[in-house]
Amino acid sequence: MSDLPLPTHTDILAAYERIRGQVVETPILTNSVLNERAGADLFLKAECLQETGSFKLRGAMNRLLQIPEENRAAGVVAFSSGNHAQGIARAAKYLSMPALIVMPADAPQVKVDGVLADGAEIYSYDRNTEGREEIAATIAGERGAVLVPSFDDAMIIAGQGTSGVEFARQVDGLDHLMCCAGGGGLISGIALAFEGLSPETQIWTAEPEHHNDWARSLATGHIQRNAPGTHSICDAILTPQPGDLTWGVGQSRLSGGLAVSDDQIREAMRLAFRHLKLVVEPGGAAALAVALFALPEAMKGQRVGVVLTGGNVDADLFAQILKG
Amino acid sequence: MSDLPLPTHTDILAAYERIRGQVVETPILTNSVLNERAGADLFLKAECLQETGSFKLRGAMNRLLQIPEENRAAGVVAFSSGNHAQGIARAAKYLSMPALIVMPADAPQVKVDGVLADGAEIYSYDRNTEGREEIAATIAGERGAVLVPSFDDAMIIAGQGTSGVEFARQVDGLDHLMCCAGGGGLISGIALAFEGLSPETQIWTAEPEHHNDWARSLATGHIQRNAPGTHSICDAILTPQPGDLTWGVGQSRLSGGLAVSDDQIREAMRLAFRHLKLVVEPGGAAALAVALFALPEAMKGQRVGVVLTGGNVDADLFAQILKG
Repeated sequence: MSDLPLPTHTDILAAYERIRGQVVETPILTNSVLNERAGADLFLKAECLQETGSFKLRGAMNRLLQIPEENRAAGVVAFSSGNHAQGIARAAKYLSMPALIVMPADAPQVKVDGVLADGAEIYSYDRNTEGREEIAATIAGERGAVLVPSFDDAMIIAGQGTSGVEFARQVDGLDHLMCCAGGGGLISGIALAFEGLSPETQIWTAEPEHHNDWARSLATGHIQRNAPGTHSICDAILTPQPGDLTWGVGQSRLSGGLAVSDDQIREAMRLAFRHLKLVVEPGGAAALAVALFALPEAMKGQRVGVVLTGGNVDADLFAQILKG
Repeated sequence: MSDLPLPTHTDILAAYERIRGQVVETPILTNSVLNERAGADLFLKAECLQETGSFKLRGAMNRLLQIPEENRAAGVVAFSSGNHAQGIARAAKYLSMPALIVMPADAPQVKVDGVLADGAEIYSYDRNTEGREEIAATIAGERGAVLVPSFDDAMIIAGQGTSGVEFARQVDGLDHLMCCAGGGGLISGIALAFEGLSPETQIWTAEPEHHNDWARSLATGHIQRNAPGTHSICDAILTPQPGDLTWGVGQSRLSGGLAVSDDQIREAMRLAFRHLKLVVEPGGAAALAVALFALPEAMKGQRVGVVLTGGNVDADLFAQILKG
């Protein structure tokens, strides 16, 4: 466990003030057809409608805005399979900073394209044989650039949590909130936001059934890892285990973990296409799949928040999933 | 030209008060990548995020809510290729009224499914050999049901115009607004809304290049028809000519018509998928295609509103378009 101080509710509010106007306040969507299917009143926070197609711009903006002006010319370095990469590339573009992203060679093309379009460099590595943390740290050291972690960082967590500030102010009296969890930067930030704004809301992780490290960690009270080689369609949330900081925030603030199959996630993506007219990527649809197909009986009839975290899916894969 | 009284700005405001809370206030989206492509600041009114996937629920609710309680049991009849059909079916469901929709046999399956899911009956006819108006009028007469036209009706126009009330209040100082036009119910309603709320905004029709009856009508000052057999990918807006009432409203309030090719519309759908994470149907993407690919030089750098009118596209067609 890290000795670094954990972010607080106050940090989330400060991040909200810092980045508002530079990120989209994403809308809450409701849909009566999906409510009937879920047997609950769903309030869908459409983070896929954020610039760059995911919530990750929030943390990136909050982090980069805190780099002193005189240090910005040296730029930033990040490692990410895609959404954090795009968030960093865009934030760096907004602030006229150079950026280099260490991305796995098998990252979705749509995410690679997004990074390149915003003018960042990509260093491509082999996910199976190379360590992205080391590569990124080495490059950052050589350049004197700031290394920006994708989730286990207080400023990143605080930035992602601004989604929770918006959510709690947009919808009153949520009984439950579902959010996917990879490293856990978003859900821990949201938990901190709700702690001060809507403490009665219970917050649950949504994960692929064989990649449910958060659910098992929360059930046992200790960080649990996924077995090496565990796979899922949800490329955005395939982190080996909760982060130290995100776990430090989440362990006492999250109510538990719920899981769904990849097939249920594909079906949730089809229903989002059909009824919401939204493009949601696999990881981004995990929480919706939980609400539609794995909602605990005790939550039926209640007000359930769902975060649709991103929509960066390759056209070919999306077309294939639509065809069932 | 009809002698029926034209709807007014006051009618639009009354419709807004009548249906608010029963329809979604659709969000305005912005996207810096699309702004760069267009060379203008685009404000996208996402009517595809309305329940039933298009703006048509607005007019349907406004019309059906004005049927006296004692007449509701006899139900409603409508004819439509799809989006109006779904709007009527959903509004009838909300008000517990029976509904029958006369639909062409080649209507998109997603639209047929939507109507059936809401419990309405469908009467299927052959677009090439049968007249839908006559079929619908006959059935309505037999049942004592109310026949609800899809656009040329003051209450329908007023209902669709509620989108314009929202738009004018959500975004200040739009220089221009682009909206697709088939029969013209939506754009004439929006023009009436803006007349009182933002009279300086110029409003333009967006149409497929070979199906540009509004553009030619506005250019000549008289209703122009499309040649029989003219086709386009935009199934939702293939009306032969402007309606009498919609033309009566639009001729003095619309600034002119702009047109795009089907290929440009497909490309706009791909860009909406890629950058907005929205599913937009062909007709619903016409205004976006104009903004991206056919924006007059004088509008560059200005604040341009774009209505994304619907997202009801079959999965197979959408997948095919994504693949380019």
